[in-house]
Amino acid sequence: MGPFLKNSWYAAAWNHEVSADTPLARTILNEPLVLFRDSAGRVVALEDRCCHRHLPLSQGKIIGDTLECGYHGLTFDGTGACVKVPGQSRVPPDSRVKAWPVLEKYQYVWVWMGDPDKAGASLLPDWHVMDDPDWAVVKGDPPFHIPCHYELFNDNLLDLSHLAYVHIKNIGTSAVPDFPIVTTKTENTVRMIRWILDSPPAPLYAHFGGFTDNIDRWQYAEAMVPSFNTVRVGCLPAGCGAQPGDHPDDFSVKSGGRNAQGFEFYNLNAITPETETSTWYFYAHSRNFAVDDPEMDEEFRRELRGAFQDDVDILAAQQSNMDRHVHNPKDWIDINVDGPGLALRRMVAEAIAAET
Amino acid sequence: MGPFLKNSWYAAAWNHEVSADTPLARTILNEPLVLFRDSAGRVVALEDRCCHRHLPLSQGKIIGDTLECGYHGLTFDGTGACVKVPGQSRVPPDSRVKAWPVLEKYQYVWVWMGDPDKAGASLLPDWHVMDDPDWAVVKGDPPFHIPCHYELFNDNLLDLSHLAYVHIKNIGTSAVPDFPIVTTKTENTVRMIRWILDSPPAPLYAHFGGFTDNIDRWQYAEAMVPSFNTVRVGCLPAGCGAQPGDHPDDFSVKSGGRNAQGFEFYNLNAITPETETSTWYFYAHSRNFAVDDPEMDEEFRRELRGAFQDDVDILAAQQSNMDRHVHNPKDWIDINVDGPGLALRRMVAEAIAAET
Amino acid sequence: MGPFLKNSWYAAAWNHEVSADTPLARTILNEPLVLFRDSAGRVVALEDRCCHRHLPLSQGKIIGDTLECGYHGLTFDGTGACVKVPGQSRVPPDSRVKAWPVLEKYQYVWVWMGDPDKAGASLLPDWHVMDDPDWAVVKGDPPFHIPCHYELFNDNLLDLSHLAYVHIKNIGTSAVPDFPIVTTKTENTVRMIRWILDSPPAPLYAHFGGFTDNIDRWQYAEAMVPSFNTVRVGCLPAGCGAQPGDHPDDFSVKSGGRNAQGFEFYNLNAITPETETSTWYFYAHSRNFAVDDPEMDEEFRRELRGAFQDDVDILAAQQSNMDRHVHNPKDWIDINVDGPGLALRRMVAEAIAAET
Repeated sequence: MGPFLKNSWYAAAWNHEVSADTPLARTILNEPLVLFRDSAGRVVALEDRCCHRHLPLSQGKIIGDTLECGYHGLTFDGTGACVKVPGQSRVPPDSRVKAWPVLEKYQYVWVWMGDPDKAGASLLPDWHVMDDPDWAVVKGDPPFHIPCHYELFNDNLLDLSHLAYVHIKNIGTSAVPDFPIVTTKTENTVRMIRWILDSPPAPLYAHFGGFTDNIDRWQYAEAMVPSFNTVRVGCLPAGCGAQPGDHPDDFSVKSGGRNAQGFEFYNLNAITPETETSTWYFYAHSRNFAVDDPEMDEEFRRELRGAFQDDVDILAAQQSNMDRHVHNPKDWIDINVDGPGLALRRMVAEAIAAET
Repeated sequence: MGPFLKNSWYAAAWNHEVSADTPLARTILNEPLVLFRDSAGRVVALEDRCCHRHLPLSQGKIIGDTLECGYHGLTFDGTGACVKVPGQSRVPPDSRVKAWPVLEKYQYVWVWMGDPDKAGASLLPDWHVMDDPDWAVVKGDPPFHIPCHYELFNDNLLDLSHLAYVHIKNIGTSAVPDFPIVTTKTENTVRMIRWILDSPPAPLYAHFGGFTDNIDRWQYAEAMVPSFNTVRVGCLPAGCGAQPGDHPDDFSVKSGGRNAQGFEFYNLNAITPETETSTWYFYAHSRNFAVDDPEMDEEFRRELRGAFQDDVDILAAQQSNMDRHVHNPKDWIDINVDGPGLALRRMVAEAIAAET
Repeated sequence: MGPFLKNSWYAAAWNHEVSADTPLARTILNEPLVLFRDSAGRVVALEDRCCHRHLPLSQGKIIGDTLECGYHGLTFDGTGACVKVPGQSRVPPDSRVKAWPVLEKYQYVWVWMGDPDKAGASLLPDWHVMDDPDWAVVKGDPPFHIPCHYELFNDNLLDLSHLAYVHIKNIGTSAVPDFPIVTTKTENTVRMIRWILDSPPAPLYAHFGGFTDNIDRWQYAEAMVPSFNTVRVGCLPAGCGAQPGDHPDDFSVKSGGRNAQGFEFYNLNAITPETETSTWYFYAHSRNFAVDDPEMDEEFRRELRGAFQDDVDILAAQQSNMDRHVHNPKDWIDINVDGPGLALRRMVAEAIAAET
């Protein structure tokens, strides 16, 4: 459970969490950050610790483009430079706090935790379905705060066999692990695809799709270093003819509502390390059916949060059990479905080694 | 406050706590255990940590004679061997969790934490009064969980002078410390006997026995390595003629109810280390009077739990005060009544030294 | 954030907190103390840890001039000597707990934590206004318990520019930092004076004094090693003619009520280290206006506690932020108003060095 990759974007907040009225404190990669919007609406990310006497700046006040410390009034601009010390005209040299590059995209606020010169919007996953007017988006708000190392969540999202055990009451069925996965890799992504063919729908799938008979269902996860995970799931009435490894795009999904022929949605998952033993989890769902149906929005909000809460409980218990001993990777027995997760762990380790 | 004796039985649960429906998690000697009953009703004790990704198995499901992990469905039999990995036919080598010998006796579930070849039912204390139909049993349920090292509780149970201070409102009187103790030893037991003669009854004794005049009372404790403590207590109207060291058996107790000539009961105490600083306390009472009186059962349940809660509070405060400094046995002044407790501490230390 | 000065008085309790009925536990400089009154009403301060088995003596009973342990009844006199061991006539040698010199003065109970031969009442700050019948006293009861190192509070009380930020809703105004401070020193005190001239009154000052126009206000803080801080504050209608550094005594304050020409009061602050990261804060107010007005008492009690709670929150957040890293004094940027606090820190460090 090594160190963190610094040269990466990380989801720091939902766009709607950051305002020009109230600073937001959030710790990422062990760094205390304070986020706020300047007068132009741009998000600023500063060190949440005044350089004077270390009060969190998040307890201060946003004044125009600056943040004023709530203890003695030292004031910092968007670059982290101290621009005012009450009671004196001269600002002492080196009076500044750290600042990080910020990107607001796909409704997330992203911060770049490493070398600013290497930051670039092209290094984000492609989550344009968050902004596509033909898709309906439900954000997991607030983000989950989980007492576990972030890679435990990476493992979870790349091994969807756990749906048969953790999520059997809503999005899982006992048939899931019976179907093989096909894994492929690029330089910085791992892809896992599974087709669950001619099987009864999971309770929530039956409800969403109005299915009474067996269905064909796909799980297509694409994880990107260090911890972005796009899971595309969907289903059709049984008999679509898919083979292991087939791409969902090759199978037409006629969507449009509960009683349509099938449906599809994305789980977009950004896993942000807070510390070595705690993690922020930002998830969203984007669906191309029942797009203008507020009731369906509410069902997604409630039912998927319930399902993911079960993951949170599992991960917390897993971390707690691991904490009883110094963890040695050899303590773990690996099984077939761990392949994608282990591949991502190797990629992350290599990326960290490469930057240090 | 050294290590633990491994080659010993420890009380892990009450018999009624372990079922074939819901696994029970309990940590003993720093080991996380999960307890359940198989289809034949036999209790199984396994490591509460899946060998795959370390989820507590106690969050899983009992299926016949096996336990299924709640994360990915790996399944373990009563020996700890993994017998099923969903999605693959082959079980990886070394896929197993630890298992411990279990004995169900005297209404307790006992586990043997050391070398299985050395386990034997003869190494338990003789608590047949738990099963004797002529005696009425009240179990302390649930067991107390106490934030202290288990030997602090050993000390407590072998020095009953504390009844004059901790339990003055129920089972103690100020006369207790005025009467001398007689201590004897065998290879692995320490015996302490005290007669409190011609003294007013403690409030609960007066209530139980209907006494209005002075009584003769005995306290006969027998502690066995590492932490089993049998305390036999009782009383008669004053004038029985006992001398220090006399055995209670030599004095007839005509029992049968509140207004009988006297009464007697056992406190059976199994102290189980959870960690170096936390302890499970299983206690039961077995009495040979008012045997079929549910009201007397309820009084024992309520009044003795109240009394023992006072011990729990004392032990927690004692441990907390000791934790302020690295504890050195020389920091303690010893007094006469510490003799039995110190003798048991030496026996436990020798037993631990002998096995390591 | 070094060690503590031992040869000093520290406020251990308010006089009304210590009784002959119930022992009071309080930890000071990492030492657990128990305080009680003997039969003559004198306060005794003993180690809160029985020399026998380390139970806190504060869980025991006051019996005349002695304290009886609540576990086995060992009894200690006011010098800490064990004078009784139940069940035996002989008290083992070295059976004693520590005792500390106690002084009851100015409504505080003070304990001397170092060499008893060096204790003396002359080493207290002069807080006779606590006993002056012409002044009305409101004690901060109970004392605040703050999760911070005590020197953070020393800093706070010597830099009153924070009133413009932390206390803007009650006792601060934005003008405070605009006026210069004058700092003077004696061997073991640091004095800071600031005049805030011709400025609007803070909300609570307007309320107390009935001011509608600008005022002249003084802040006169005198801090004594290691952590006694007397802050004398007051105001007059604007135009008193004071210059930076002028002593408040040179300006007549005609007091007597809300609508008087001006008013003055003392904040008396005793900061007592509990541990390296926790602190007791005893504060009191003594005013020479509306002396017999219970409503004004109540306003002082409520409003100043509210204001000081804001300090407590700041200090806790500051300490918590400092705890994220090993603190290095060089991590702090100093500004002008830190002068008095830094001077006191140097004096405390020198006093500690001198005694070790």
